[in-house]
Amino acid sequence: VASRKVIPVPAGTRVAFQGEPGAFSQTACNQLFGPRIEVVPCPSFDSVFEAVRRRVVPYAVVPIENSLAGSVHQNYDLMERHAIEVLGETFVRIEHSLIALPGATLRSVRKVYSHPVALAQCLRFFKRFPRMEPVQFYDTAGSVKHIRETELEGAAAIASAESATIYGMKVLRRGIEDDAGNFTRFLALAPRGKVRHRGGKTSIVFALRNEPGALFKALSVFALREVDLSKIESRPILGKPWEYLFYADLRADTRSAACDNALRHLREFVPYFRLLGSYRTY
Amino acid sequence: VASRKVIPVPAGTRVAFQGEPGAFSQTACNQLFGPRIEVVPCPSFDSVFEAVRRRVVPYAVVPIENSLAGSVHQNYDLMERHAIEVLGETFVRIEHSLIALPGATLRSVRKVYSHPVALAQCLRFFKRFPRMEPVQFYDTAGSVKHIRETELEGAAAIASAESATIYGMKVLRRGIEDDAGNFTRFLALAPRGKVRHRGGKTSIVFALRNEPGALFKALSVFALREVDLSKIESRPILGKPWEYLFYADLRADTRSAACDNALRHLREFVPYFRLLGSYRTY
Repeated sequence: VASRKVIPVPAGTRVAFQGEPGAFSQTACNQLFGPRIEVVPCPSFDSVFEAVRRRVVPYAVVPIENSLAGSVHQNYDLMERHAIEVLGETFVRIEHSLIALPGATLRSVRKVYSHPVALAQCLRFFKRFPRMEPVQFYDTAGSVKHIRETELEGAAAIASAESATIYGMKVLRRGIEDDAGNFTRFLALAPRGKVRHRGGKTSIVFALRNEPGALFKALSVFALREVDLSKIESRPILGKPWEYLFYADLRADTRSAACDNALRHLREFVPYFRLLGSYRTY
Repeated sequence: VASRKVIPVPAGTRVAFQGEPGAFSQTACNQLFGPRIEVVPCPSFDSVFEAVRRRVVPYAVVPIENSLAGSVHQNYDLMERHAIEVLGETFVRIEHSLIALPGATLRSVRKVYSHPVALAQCLRFFKRFPRMEPVQFYDTAGSVKHIRETELEGAAAIASAESATIYGMKVLRRGIEDDAGNFTRFLALAPRGKVRHRGGKTSIVFALRNEPGALFKALSVFALREVDLSKIESRPILGKPWEYLFYADLRADTRSAACDNALRHLREFVPYFRLLGSYRTY
């Protein structure tokens, strides 16, 4: 079997992620950095970014977008607040399982714990089993751990089948997500300026002057040079109601003349610009 | 005092909103339709849209964007799924208060219940009072009601000061939001085609062919005619990973030649287009 290409780091390198062991983010960590890293579970996205900023870990992995739920806006905001750089991206197929204590059956389940996004991705399952009440929890794998530790009767969790193995729990049903086209895009992050991997994808953030045609003008720098945009996302600017920061992903490498020129052109007229990274897909 | 202009409806007209009496959405209902309507509280945004679709109510009001938290993406998705029309918009200043049982003091509070967005808007308050643990609840005013009904000791809610009055509760502290520039934009909705108010704002939704420069080309129809975009928002298209629907707000009336021509031009080449409404600000 050919080994999958990963970001080259020494064995035992610490990589932070949000969630508990068995979380989809852990799968993303291994897809990005390989199997020989030490993963560092963190309780929140804030604490993941803090761990990188305070150099507690050299790298972190966060989800940025899900193909069904859309962008993880909190992480866009955190990328803007912290001096981080994007090193790489990867895509994880999200397959949700219903997981409970070893003695449980589908009929015994009354409450189903999981992360709000995971709950929202299994609406058809909840319509089929109206007796089951969804309960919001901070993490998918964390809800498996919670049910195991508290021996919670009548409860189940929605999480990866891997997390059932980790906590010695039973998979009551696999693949309960509404849509099989359920993928999450994760980014590998490092403190800004530490390393500079390059690749076919470039992420930027910029603000616009509050004037007619400003976004059109900004997109023209790419369109005129045939640099393709794969994603654009707007986020409010705090303290400036109804003004926005724009996050854009380009299918281009900053080393290419077209991309480099486009970014220089954009910087000529936007009031704020930042390069988040130029990287490849792992 | 000059009376504020509202959408003209008969006294007693039923208007649905998400939340409990005292919610900020109720304030929005009255700003949009005046004080003589009958407001109909609903448990979820889904049920608000269902109530309109099944003609249980002729109108509804939903939040679409907050100046700090960003768009309410669920309501963008629900607008797309239901045959509704936008009749008007209004802006409500969000002032959060800490509310508890009449005998409570600031020192006695251990758990603070509220809607996740309201909790996220009071982070500085939680940093100042680290003993207080935020607890996610389905509604701001609903958390006040919950504490009242269960006589919950050691608990407080984050909600509008008006909701304290409604439920006979005590305001422990006013204005606990991080940022005074905290406004929510609400839309008045009706079943599609029922009425057609016009005004200086137009909302549309469209898809793009998955090809380079597609968004630039779409925005060109407005830029070339000096039709100003006040907002653009992308949402994933279910079943088509990494393709997006775009929601745009134009500072223009569909009765103007520039706007009408721009929309006709856009429809020439986009695979999907829908006019959500042309309306005024109340």
